[in-house]
Amino acid sequence: MRKHYLATPGPSPVPEQVRLALAEEMIHHRTADFRSYTASATANLKKVFKTENDVLIMAASGTGAMEAAVSNVISRGDRAITVEGGKFGERWTELVMAFGGEPLVMEVEWGRGPDPAEIGAILKANPDVKAVYATLCETSTATVQDIEAIGKIVAHTEAILVVDGISGAGAVDIRTDEWGVDILCVGSQKALMMPPGLAFVTVSDKAWGRIDKADRAAYYFDLKKARKNAAKNDTPYTPAVSMIRALARATDMIVKEGVEEVLSRHSKLARATRAAVEAIGLEIFSKAPADAVTAVLMPEGLDAEKLRKLMDERFGVSVAGGQAHLKGRVIRIAHMGYMGALDIVAVVAALEMALALMGFDFKAGSGLAACQKVLVDE
Amino acid sequence: MRKHYLATPGPSPVPEQVRLALAEEMIHHRTADFRSYTASATANLKKVFKTENDVLIMAASGTGAMEAAVSNVISRGDRAITVEGGKFGERWTELVMAFGGEPLVMEVEWGRGPDPAEIGAILKANPDVKAVYATLCETSTATVQDIEAIGKIVAHTEAILVVDGISGAGAVDIRTDEWGVDILCVGSQKALMMPPGLAFVTVSDKAWGRIDKADRAAYYFDLKKARKNAAKNDTPYTPAVSMIRALARATDMIVKEGVEEVLSRHSKLARATRAAVEAIGLEIFSKAPADAVTAVLMPEGLDAEKLRKLMDERFGVSVAGGQAHLKGRVIRIAHMGYMGALDIVAVVAALEMALALMGFDFKAGSGLAACQKVLVDE
Repeated sequence: MRKHYLATPGPSPVPEQVRLALAEEMIHHRTADFRSYTASATANLKKVFKTENDVLIMAASGTGAMEAAVSNVISRGDRAITVEGGKFGERWTELVMAFGGEPLVMEVEWGRGPDPAEIGAILKANPDVKAVYATLCETSTATVQDIEAIGKIVAHTEAILVVDGISGAGAVDIRTDEWGVDILCVGSQKALMMPPGLAFVTVSDKAWGRIDKADRAAYYFDLKKARKNAAKNDTPYTPAVSMIRALARATDMIVKEGVEEVLSRHSKLARATRAAVEAIGLEIFSKAPADAVTAVLMPEGLDAEKLRKLMDERFGVSVAGGQAHLKGRVIRIAHMGYMGALDIVAVVAALEMALALMGFDFKAGSGLAACQKVLVDE
Repeated sequence: MRKHYLATPGPSPVPEQVRLALAEEMIHHRTADFRSYTASATANLKKVFKTENDVLIMAASGTGAMEAAVSNVISRGDRAITVEGGKFGERWTELVMAFGGEPLVMEVEWGRGPDPAEIGAILKANPDVKAVYATLCETSTATVQDIEAIGKIVAHTEAILVVDGISGAGAVDIRTDEWGVDILCVGSQKALMMPPGLAFVTVSDKAWGRIDKADRAAYYFDLKKARKNAAKNDTPYTPAVSMIRALARATDMIVKEGVEEVLSRHSKLARATRAAVEAIGLEIFSKAPADAVTAVLMPEGLDAEKLRKLMDERFGVSVAGGQAHLKGRVIRIAHMGYMGALDIVAVVAALEMALALMGFDFKAGSGLAACQKVLVDE
């Protein structure tokens, strides 16, 4: 027997009741029953994303939502600011180029958030910029960006603010309307306790205005067509029926727990993880750590990939490694979605035991004690 | 209690063992376990599609596969033949236009297949045509196209042959390699006994040659990137993990039954359905009826939508109605995927009883008798 613990930043664990919803008998999508699932999932997502904007559901992984936010918005030759600072920020740049736009790349040191004032300066110098592409939680570095501050700056310009909230939304606060996020992209397999395969896009009136003006190369991801269908709780093409029925179930759980309570739970798990890491004597990689995932920097001589493999093979705990130049240098522990206090205890225990096996010098149990202190006290 | 029978051309019924696979615990996609599901599903799909070409799996509904077959192939200003004759043929035209191509629309009377010689003539007159877009089973009219004959003509030109096999493949024979189908597009929710949410694309060497030359506006559906990842049983973006694991299960069932046996089963169910319809005194709409779905033409005074509603509300049997100008004029009975002899008996019984309730003049039981004759004799 080998019990398995999933602590990767997508896919994340899926509750049994959601998995059982996936297993229900197939139904047709043009029925009152199915429309009620779509309606209820959509209403729940609006609460999670804190928005009254349109919420559109698509059969795709999160990158499909990102493509929709570029292909519907950017015409050939249009300029857009892409905030980098990690693998997912770079994806915005690639997408803008793939659809014929001209990215103004704002490079940010990996592990730090962008300086909102710098975005303001670029916008001032380039008033023709059509959109600013940012990332709520840059999963590759486990870093959160200050979307509220960026939103305040973008709101006063003609540009729209597009945020990749794929691995953030639901774990990290996102106030779509209050912060002026014109398009928010989210995936199902992160904080929303669902398998991968669904993507969500919210669209503000300002964004619809931009979409109306764009010369769009979009068909499957045509947001205008999706909006027309969404008005009847329908989709332009056959929806992923089982997945949407399960999404209604998963988001019901979130709404029942309470969106603020879910955010507090994520914050507590994140703080417990960070406390454990520091008590063990390791360093948090990010200077603006996100509450969805924690990147742990390895000291000289400690191979992250070896640690990760040991945690998996000996204790059944899956965490993620580093991407690009961080490969071998960090492990990333996710605490998003269907995770409770004792899940973090299990991950920290596996981390401690694997470190001990690798001969790392630290006080056994120190991480667990620090972790428990946060879980109990706060 | 209300038992439900799904006889719609997508979604189609999903076997319990496949639904239970959907409900299994989430696992990470970059693992040997998950790669083995992808490998096995891909190998099975190659058998069903009768191809040695690359088979790429994407998280999307079938239209996503169609988009991939246009956005990767057609550059701005490129000309392509789109064979219409139904709602899904029209989708090819819309897609070619959405990606800046120029469709040469070949209009075909709804309910008939295209004349392959006519395609040859258009190709001869327009040697710059980059692709011919056809449809294996035009679901809106329940009509099969002669892909073998079209393939023979297109093979001798520079153009590639792209076939929408979304609702056909697995129910209607498709010999991708033998017939020279360069790109085949398929969806999961038709003959493959899966829920909607996965799309498949096969790509021949000739098609890769065309894709290499195209100025592509593709990112999420970038086939070259997908091929690179598929070589490692991986995908460019997070795959729909639960769906692919279930797909491995569903296609195992197909391969175990035998691809030819599955086709024979579909043929028998189709013949039984057509025999029943004719014995009742109704007309088959299509002049080239497909084995995946049967369109039944209503005589003057018989409202298809009323019949459909009655079959559903009184007997729990879902069939599809007509699309576009066929709305109210036909019902479409699907016999694709996880359907056996007695499922067709149930549908025919519901049809007979609903017709009787509507006062249609026919001999009760005549449809069932004709249906049984095919099911037993052949």
